[in-house]
Amino acid sequence: MKNIALTIKSYEKKGVLDKITKMIFSHDINISYANIFIENNELGSIYFELEQVKNIDKLIEDIKSINHVKSVEVHDSLNDIYGKRIIILGGGAQVSQVAAGAIAEADRHNIRGERISIDTIPLVGEENVAEAVNALARLPRVQALVLAGSLMGGEIKKAVEKVKEDNDLIVISLNMPGGITEIADLIITDPTQAGVMAVMAISDTATFDIKKLKSNKF
Amino acid sequence: MKNIALTIKSYEKKGVLDKITKMIFSHDINISYANIFIENNELGSIYFELEQVKNIDKLIEDIKSINHVKSVEVHDSLNDIYGKRIIILGGGAQVSQVAAGAIAEADRHNIRGERISIDTIPLVGEENVAEAVNALARLPRVQALVLAGSLMGGEIKKAVEKVKEDNDLIVISLNMPGGITEIADLIITDPTQAGVMAVMAISDTATFDIKKLKSNKF
Repeated sequence: MKNIALTIKSYEKKGVLDKITKMIFSHDINISYANIFIENNELGSIYFELEQVKNIDKLIEDIKSINHVKSVEVHDSLNDIYGKRIIILGGGAQVSQVAAGAIAEADRHNIRGERISIDTIPLVGEENVAEAVNALARLPRVQALVLAGSLMGGEIKKAVEKVKEDNDLIVISLNMPGGITEIADLIITDPTQAGVMAVMAISDTATFDIKKLKSNKF
Repeated sequence: MKNIALTIKSYEKKGVLDKITKMIFSHDINISYANIFIENNELGSIYFELEQVKNIDKLIEDIKSINHVKSVEVHDSLNDIYGKRIIILGGGAQVSQVAAGAIAEADRHNIRGERISIDTIPLVGEENVAEAVNALARLPRVQALVLAGSLMGGEIKKAVEKVKEDNDLIVISLNMPGGITEIADLIITDPTQAGVMAVMAISDTATFDIKKLKSNKF
């Protein structure tokens, strides 16, 4: 029984996905993650991460037998390659400073075999940032959020409360006015350190556990 | 006829996805992108981006009628929220400098209404970087790749050639030895500028067109 990832290319036809998922379920396999998208050459591409695959060869043979399926490829999962994601939201000078700190720290971890990605969207405005926080639940592999700004509260605070409730997510905020610091797991004054600590907090190898800290403000 | 995004929560049961996709196709709707994942509270969550939806209310009603479906939510697509993605790959001091340049430039564009994300994975080693380049085709919304290192060629060059062939993707390389500069669309010596130019190259508002340049090395 193995966890594997598959990319299936098919000529874009309604119903092919339907047939493929039915085939996968008939093998008693769980789909843990899937991506569907259309490539520019008008082929459809479907990426699946599958759990508890007993007979890989038979599965691939069966999928290949479906009409309109062009190719099936087995490879490492996106989790194996891009790993855990830290999302940095905010605007101005601070957002790139947080990212620089996180990237430098992730480089040190990844060089020793981990996989941590640092994903940033520079955004300003209460509504825009709140909407992006809400959408985090729809992004795969996210383990931490860093809020890099100088004034965040209101709708952003509500969105963070909701996303923390529904997902296992560490939230780090820069030290700022606006109410966000009341609900963040960590409040960090220096943006570079905020980025570094986000990586330390989700790393498998660091001996840093947010829950064991006596204070959450630095 | 509208393009919409839906998040459907269901109790994780094999076959629910199958029933949902069948329902969507029965409405003669195209699925342009889908994500499936399991939340920590053991609910399954499925995110769909749908094209040419005629009757949203009827579609939602029909999906809600499927056994094990807990909730259906309509919202903006990830493309509307997180927008186009630039992926930065490489290690050491240069990767965070490229990211800082790209983030500062994306901040300037996003503040005027665009949505550009800067996603970075610090990685070293020919095999690791080549594998991450190959996996780009399985990531959604990627429009540009920046290779931030001091020696890249061999398997990385082959992976970049393949990914460029299969996808609409602008590839920017730092000026370095190793063969990667032979196939990159742009070769930039300064890492900050490489990040800035990656944003300019994919932006809707910038008047910068790589194809119109007389030289591709700066």
